[in-house]
Amino acid sequence: MGENIVATPAADAVNIPAPRLRFEPSGREVNPAVGQTVLALAQRARVLVDHTCSGAGTCGKCRVRMEGAASPLTDAERHFLAGEQLEQGFRLACQAYPEGDVSVLVEEIGPLEILSGGLPLRVRLAPFVAKEYVELPRPSIHDQRDPLARLEERLNGRLRVRPDRDFLDSLAMAFDAAAGQLTLARAGRDLISVEPGDTRTTLLGAAFDIGTTTVVCYLRDLCTGRLLAVKAAANPQTAYGADVIARIQHTQSGHRAGVELRKAITGCINQMVAEACDEAGAAPRQVYEIVFAGNTTMLHLLMGLPVESIARAPYVPAVLQGLDLDAAGLWLKVHPRARAYLLPHVSSYVGADIVADLLASRLHRSKRLTLLVDFGTNAEIVLGSRERLVACSAAAGPCFEGGNISCGMRASRGAISSAALKDGRLALETIWNGAPAGICGTGLLDLVALLREHELVDEAGRFQNPGELQHAPPAIVQRLETGAEGPRFLLAAPGESANADALALTGRDIRELQVAKAAIAAGIRVLCEKLGVDRSEIREVLLAGAFGCSIRHESALSLGLLPRCPGARYRSIGNGAGAGAQMALLSARSRREAERIARRVEYVELSASPSFSDAFMDEIVLAPTG
Amino acid sequence: MGENIVATPAADAVNIPAPRLRFEPSGREVNPAVGQTVLALAQRARVLVDHTCSGAGTCGKCRVRMEGAASPLTDAERHFLAGEQLEQGFRLACQAYPEGDVSVLVEEIGPLEILSGGLPLRVRLAPFVAKEYVELPRPSIHDQRDPLARLEERLNGRLRVRPDRDFLDSLAMAFDAAAGQLTLARAGRDLISVEPGDTRTTLLGAAFDIGTTTVVCYLRDLCTGRLLAVKAAANPQTAYGADVIARIQHTQSGHRAGVELRKAITGCINQMVAEACDEAGAAPRQVYEIVFAGNTTMLHLLMGLPVESIARAPYVPAVLQGLDLDAAGLWLKVHPRARAYLLPHVSSYVGADIVADLLASRLHRSKRLTLLVDFGTNAEIVLGSRERLVACSAAAGPCFEGGNISCGMRASRGAISSAALKDGRLALETIWNGAPAGICGTGLLDLVALLREHELVDEAGRFQNPGELQHAPPAIVQRLETGAEGPRFLLAAPGESANADALALTGRDIRELQVAKAAIAAGIRVLCEKLGVDRSEIREVLLAGAFGCSIRHESALSLGLLPRCPGARYRSIGNGAGAGAQMALLSARSRREAERIARRVEYVELSASPSFSDAFMDEIVLAPTG
Repeated sequence: MGENIVATPAADAVNIPAPRLRFEPSGREVNPAVGQTVLALAQRARVLVDHTCSGAGTCGKCRVRMEGAASPLTDAERHFLAGEQLEQGFRLACQAYPEGDVSVLVEEIGPLEILSGGLPLRVRLAPFVAKEYVELPRPSIHDQRDPLARLEERLNGRLRVRPDRDFLDSLAMAFDAAAGQLTLARAGRDLISVEPGDTRTTLLGAAFDIGTTTVVCYLRDLCTGRLLAVKAAANPQTAYGADVIARIQHTQSGHRAGVELRKAITGCINQMVAEACDEAGAAPRQVYEIVFAGNTTMLHLLMGLPVESIARAPYVPAVLQGLDLDAAGLWLKVHPRARAYLLPHVSSYVGADIVADLLASRLHRSKRLTLLVDFGTNAEIVLGSRERLVACSAAAGPCFEGGNISCGMRASRGAISSAALKDGRLALETIWNGAPAGICGTGLLDLVALLREHELVDEAGRFQNPGELQHAPPAIVQRLETGAEGPRFLLAAPGESANADALALTGRDIRELQVAKAAIAAGIRVLCEKLGVDRSEIREVLLAGAFGCSIRHESALSLGLLPRCPGARYRSIGNGAGAGAQMALLSARSRREAERIARRVEYVELSASPSFSDAFMDEIVLAPTG
Repeated sequence: MGENIVATPAADAVNIPAPRLRFEPSGREVNPAVGQTVLALAQRARVLVDHTCSGAGTCGKCRVRMEGAASPLTDAERHFLAGEQLEQGFRLACQAYPEGDVSVLVEEIGPLEILSGGLPLRVRLAPFVAKEYVELPRPSIHDQRDPLARLEERLNGRLRVRPDRDFLDSLAMAFDAAAGQLTLARAGRDLISVEPGDTRTTLLGAAFDIGTTTVVCYLRDLCTGRLLAVKAAANPQTAYGADVIARIQHTQSGHRAGVELRKAITGCINQMVAEACDEAGAAPRQVYEIVFAGNTTMLHLLMGLPVESIARAPYVPAVLQGLDLDAAGLWLKVHPRARAYLLPHVSSYVGADIVADLLASRLHRSKRLTLLVDFGTNAEIVLGSRERLVACSAAAGPCFEGGNISCGMRASRGAISSAALKDGRLALETIWNGAPAGICGTGLLDLVALLREHELVDEAGRFQNPGELQHAPPAIVQRLETGAEGPRFLLAAPGESANADALALTGRDIRELQVAKAAIAAGIRVLCEKLGVDRSEIREVLLAGAFGCSIRHESALSLGLLPRCPGARYRSIGNGAGAGAQMALLSARSRREAERIARRVEYVELSASPSFSDAFMDEIVLAPTG
């Protein structure tokens, strides 16, 4: 997955007289703490506010209508909200802070039609873990049966009991303490825990999307389905390597290296659960299940399994199937008998994150031929409908995250994120309106599309001679210059850039994008061939992940990165992996559906596909396809 | 259970030129190490030598015929071997040390008709844990399935796979290391471990009898059934209390007290396994299963479960059923995926040791009405046949272990262990022929029977006036004297005893035995009543445990401790619990049989039995019953 991480603006820690915030139409009220955004307060008040970027200010979906004293507008709000909306009091919940008594109108979402990551979670609430209350007969001198026999009699085979030391210990304690009144927690048909008294309303669950770059945690109440908190953090494994291959290589650097990576992510998860619980006024002990989505390598590292074979032909990972594990066995600090569910993978390079994307987007149920692309160093591509599903992973390289681009950078402050010609001038937007510090994936795509449109670059990706560009706007032609490595396109003169160096796009940079484009477009061709369809038959194109969420479709189409299909709908599905993980948390049926999806998807190994290299050579051109 | 522990004589650590010992008829040879008895050497050579006291020199069953230079005869050998046997070169294997080249003739026992604890282990070798070898298809670029999918395809549902982190880790490692050639270890229908290559011949198991006083470990090769080593040790929990009730009370003395007891026994078990493996030239990692017999409290303490409810009405323990657990969950240092099986209990006071006694003695399959008594502070009594089984536990007090007797002691050096009239004189035997230091249970029984026979004590347990004892042998009448607390019977004058004090039996001592006798005899009566039979119908009487092994039946009969049943056979079954545990180790079928036995036995709670107190008052007399 190609996650882009955007720094959240630090909350200004000024002292504000304690205001009161009221959410409408629910009427829930909170006393805002200093430095908490409306989005964080909504989570505290258990009011659902739609968003896909975990409060990073990059999705623009968390718009609410505020009345009362609020913090000044931010750049992100000016970016996402039209003037008319601003006049009506619309704000982004992740940007606005209350500065006095405030009321906030939130568009209602039903408890089971939960929007998250841009996709509605269409599930019936029936989680894999559940609780029930029983009363067991009390012992007497004429009935000396042990608590286990009493429990088994009551269950009558309905639930499986696997008595181990800890279970027997807690059963004996609970039976003694609560006069036979017990709450049972089950996972599927397995009894997992026994508690004294009636604790049925205490049942939380967490869903995680473990991205290579970003980790997102969703804490939910499994009795009501309500979202209690969302937390996002950088994956701490990044310190050991930016991408999947670098992390796999790191595990080979010493016999404890795999353990280091495992501990890094486990520590991060435990901290996020603790913070989410804290925000929800709950304790990690109340979490009975965690569901994980993530790519194959990330979930292997989470389990501390060997990953070396993922990077070595024939690319066989330790495990592909969905796993219902003891959370304690993964060193997770939640309820001691909690379960951990890891969504299934299709292959080493089409992981549980893509399965979760499919689950959330319902591609596998669609009547229409649908294409799903999740951009990243490896771009995962799925093509199909309810009839059949094929998938591959195309080695796109890191250019969508700004990697291998001379002035490339991640999508953080100062990254050029879009390029267009406005009023005859080159308009470059940067994230947070910072001074230009580099170019990120979306900016690269826009820029090259623009250069192609005005023929400053030809189909083969070569810069043209300025003298031959009579029809091109002078504002951009004049930026063509000759650098040390040949022709280049000036983005910022030394005086304009953040670090006082000139920023320019080189021919080699364009070549990086060309290779990524060719790999992805060729992957799509191979999948079409596999299904026996033409690209023009595709009726829906779904773009997953943060990058897929923020690219301009027109740029991707004009460069041939995505096929131009007449009548097709192009949709960004945001954090589909997070949405799918939450569905699997809320519904045991969704989990079984995910396992069916993983089994159904036919994986195409591009390195073994005879037509891939031909398709790659055909697609190296920067031109629309379809 | 009433175990008596007898100190093994310390081996003299003199330097002997390395001799060679050859066992016949097997032809196996060993180089004896200094200080190793023939029994220990037989275990090292994996030659089966029958014995029931784990080499303590108290059962006399390990007789072998030796030729060559051997250590001098010990007292135990003179005790157990007749003059004719000594002339023929018979020795006790646990007493004799080779002092040069020696050949030892051992009576052969078939590999499946293994004698241990006096009972043949009648089992067909088919242990719960077993191994098999498989070869899985190697991966290729066209077959990228994970090792788990390959394994599941091969198993085709025959074994259950519960993939957890450690299992997946070892599967991935083994699959990668051994080109798909794997050995599977299973426990029942569950796959528990995967190992690279063919390791089928490495499969050990241990059976433990966890007595309140003594712990015995039997290490066996589960491929051949052979006994590899036997180890006995004092239960280190004795430091926290001599009997079950004292230990339960200790667990109430602080919140870590139960953990202390648990750690004491776990440490002891781990050390015994390590020593037994060392003796067998094996490693604890090769042990895939441990089976435990023991009373309800001992096995609860082993699991670290609460025991307080065992000592409190209505005496409901945490668990009664047989348990197949992860050995690692009990902190056992064996194979990391090994199983631990705890035999089932009938009730708080009729534990898995008795179930093992029944399994080994086949009482539950007998056509003849059979009585089994295991003497101890609580004497467990079972009555029945293949038709029906009833059981109870009678509070006998500690007199069989020498407790509450003024000059009582355990069965160790110097304990008066038998009393008889020989050639008109009182003949007292002491253990190891030591100077008399006290009297142990068997001596007490013999002595009181002798006093009753010659009417120095009446039915009510009162000493008679010496003047009225014209017909009694003067040698014993003259030992009647008056002490500070009334009349007493002199056993050793101050000059004769080990500690220079006079040893004497008091009226209160006799009362202790009377109470024990009454409790047991009344228990037997209640069971007969429950079954609707008369004591005279009993056809077989089985005496279990170390005390039951060494008492003189005639003394027990004359005092009414055991019913005198015409035509009945009286048999000591030795360490039936150890034998039963080994059967459950060697045969999954025996294990299921033990569970059926535990469910079949109808437990009678004497404290709730209306007829028990009447029977107790009737049985307080010291006279034969039947």
